[in-house]
Amino acid sequence: MATIKDVAKEAGVSIATVSRVINKSPKASQSSIDVVTQAMTKLGYRPNAAAKALVSQSTNTVGVLVSDVSDPFFGTLIKAVDTVAENHGKHILIGNGYHDADKERRALDLLINSRCDALVIHAKGLSDEELISYAKEVKSMVIINRHIPELANRCISLNNYKGAYLATEFLIRHGHRQIACLASSHNIEDAEQRIAGYQAALEAHNINLNNQYIEYGEPNSEGGETAMTNLMSKSVPFTGVVAYNDYMAAGALSVLDENGLAVPRDVSLVGFDDGLIAKYIQPRLTTVRYPIQMMAEKAAELAISLTKEDSNASVQKDLNSKKSDGKDLESKALDSQTDTIIFSPTMVRRDSVLKIS
Amino acid sequence: MATIKDVAKEAGVSIATVSRVINKSPKASQSSIDVVTQAMTKLGYRPNAAAKALVSQSTNTVGVLVSDVSDPFFGTLIKAVDTVAENHGKHILIGNGYHDADKERRALDLLINSRCDALVIHAKGLSDEELISYAKEVKSMVIINRHIPELANRCISLNNYKGAYLATEFLIRHGHRQIACLASSHNIEDAEQRIAGYQAALEAHNINLNNQYIEYGEPNSEGGETAMTNLMSKSVPFTGVVAYNDYMAAGALSVLDENGLAVPRDVSLVGFDDGLIAKYIQPRLTTVRYPIQMMAEKAAELAISLTKEDSNASVQKDLNSKKSDGKDLESKALDSQTDTIIFSPTMVRRDSVLKIS
Repeated sequence: MATIKDVAKEAGVSIATVSRVINKSPKASQSSIDVVTQAMTKLGYRPNAAAKALVSQSTNTVGVLVSDVSDPFFGTLIKAVDTVAENHGKHILIGNGYHDADKERRALDLLINSRCDALVIHAKGLSDEELISYAKEVKSMVIINRHIPELANRCISLNNYKGAYLATEFLIRHGHRQIACLASSHNIEDAEQRIAGYQAALEAHNINLNNQYIEYGEPNSEGGETAMTNLMSKSVPFTGVVAYNDYMAAGALSVLDENGLAVPRDVSLVGFDDGLIAKYIQPRLTTVRYPIQMMAEKAAELAISLTKEDSNASVQKDLNSKKSDGKDLESKALDSQTDTIIFSPTMVRRDSVLKIS
Repeated sequence: MATIKDVAKEAGVSIATVSRVINKSPKASQSSIDVVTQAMTKLGYRPNAAAKALVSQSTNTVGVLVSDVSDPFFGTLIKAVDTVAENHGKHILIGNGYHDADKERRALDLLINSRCDALVIHAKGLSDEELISYAKEVKSMVIINRHIPELANRCISLNNYKGAYLATEFLIRHGHRQIACLASSHNIEDAEQRIAGYQAALEAHNINLNNQYIEYGEPNSEGGETAMTNLMSKSVPFTGVVAYNDYMAAGALSVLDENGLAVPRDVSLVGFDDGLIAKYIQPRLTTVRYPIQMMAEKAAELAISLTKEDSNASVQKDLNSKKSDGKDLESKALDSQTDTIIFSPTMVRRDSVLKIS
C-alpha cells in the first residue's frame, strides 16, 4: 500500500503539504490540492485514519459497550447509537462485556485506548466506584440502563421498579391475588428493583405473599423454564405470573403448556421488554415496554454533545497550561443536562392476561 | 489529557524513549521502562491507539459489514466474528449497509480508512465487480453469504439452492404436492437461488405448478403477511408453504390463523434460518438451518489469516522496493484455502409440517 512519502514523491511536494491536503487545512493551495489528489488516485493511496486521528485528535468514533451484541435488545440499542452517530458523521466501535467486571473493564479500556470521541456504556459487572473513575477520565462517557447518583446527568436509565409495579398491578386489577414473580438470578440492580416493584404493588393492595412466590433463573428462556418448574414443584397456588423479561415468560409458558395449563385460561402471564419475540409468542405476550431505542438515542446524543464540551474545555485547559483534576469538567458535564434521563416503562396489553373474579 | 510530551518531560527522557517504551521496543532499557511507566501513571496518560497504529501499521481491528445490526441473524454473525477476533487479541468495528449499494460503499470505505487489519463483509447491494475491486485493494477482506467465482477462496457462502430444495422436498415427502413459495422481494442472489431450489425440487418430483404459486414480500414478518394474503386472494389451492425465512413464515402463520386455517392441520409450513424466533413461534417452526455462526467464525479466521499473509507480502514488497499491482498477492490469498467455503443447510424438524395422504 502506498505511503504518504510515496504520494509526496509522486506529487513532487513535501510530506507536510500532502498532510495539509489530506487534513483539509486552509493553508493548502489549490495547486497543491490538485497535484496531491492526482498522486493519491494514481497510487491508490488512502488517507490513514490513524494519522488523521493524531492530527485532529478525533477519531470520529463512538464507542458502545453492551452485554452481548447477539441479543436483539442490545442490537436495538446499538442500531440507535449508530443512527445518531451517522447523523453526526461518526461511526461506532463495539465491545461485549457479558455482565462480567473483567470483560467490561477490558472492553472499556480498548474503547478508550482507541480514542473514541464519545462512549455509551452498558455495564453491569463494574462497580459504581470504578465507573465513576472512568467517567472522570472520559468526559464524554454516558452510562445507559443504570443510575449512579454521582453521575446522575450522565446516566440514562429506566425506572425498573415502576415497570414491575405496573405489571403486578395490571394482574391485580384483573382480579389476580396469587401472583408469582420469576426473577433474574443475575446480581444486578435491575433484578433487585423489579422484585421491589413487585412487592410494593402487592403491599399497596394488601396482598401478603411469602418469598415462596419468588423464583429465580437466568434471564433467558431456559431460566424461565427452570424457575417455572421450581415454582410448580413447591405446590404454591398461583393464577398470575410476572416474569423478569419476555424470554423468561416464554420459557415459563412452555413449562405451563407441558403441564396442561393454558395461558391465559389457567394462568395469566406478563413479560418485560416488549422485545422481538413478544409478538411471536402464542398467545401474544402482554408485557412491559422498555423504550431502549429512545433511551439509546438519548444516550448517544448526550455523549456526542459532551464531546464538544470536552474539547472546548481542553482548549481552555491548554490555555491555562495547568493539569485539571477533572472536577471542573465533571461539574460542567453534569450541569449540562435537564431533560428526561430516567425513562418510564409502559404496559403493552396483548393476549396473555385474563380477568378473573 | 496528558500528551506524550508531558510524559517525556515528567520522566526526564526524550519523546523517542517514551515511544519505545509504549511500543514495547526491545531497545527500551529497564530504567527507561520504569521512569516512563511511573510518569504515565502519575499523569493518567493512555497510550494513543492512533499513534501506536501508525508505528505498528496495525490497528488490531477487524471490520465487519452487515446489513442491520439489530437483526439477530447479524447479531449472531457479529458475535462469532468478535469471539474469533478476541482470541487473536483484536477487537471489531461495525458498519451497517442495509442491502443498499451507497450505504455499503460508505460503510466499507470507513472500515478501510480506519485501517482495519481484516474485513468480514456481508454486502448485497454492491456489484460483483465493485467487490472484486475492493478485494484487490484489501488482501484480508473476506465476503460472507455470497459467492463470487473470481474471489472463490475468499467467499464463505451458503448453498441457498440446496436449502430451498430440502425444504420443498421435505413437504413432498410428507405427501404435499400443492406447495406455495413465499419469496423475498429483495433483488439479491439468495432470493433467486431459493426460488430455483424450490422449482428444482418440484420438477424432480414431476410436479407442475405455475408462477401463481410464487408470491413475493419483504423478508420480514409484515412481508410474510402480505405475501400470504396475496396468495390466498388468488384462490390458489395449496396444502404446503415454503417461506424465504422464519419471519415471513411467522407473518404467513398469523394470516392463516386469522382466516381460520391451522398450522399444521390445514397448512404445513417450513421456514428458513432457524433463527431466534423459530422456537418461539407456535407451533414450533420446522425450518432450514442456516449455520451462520460457524460460517462467521470461518470467515473471521480466514480474514485474520490473510492479514498475516498480507504483511509477509508487504515485507517482501518493501524489500523489492517495487509497487505490486496486487496480482501476486491475490493469487496467494486465493490458493491459501482448501477447507469448506460453501456451507450446507440442514432441515430442523419441529411441529409445523403434517403428513398428508
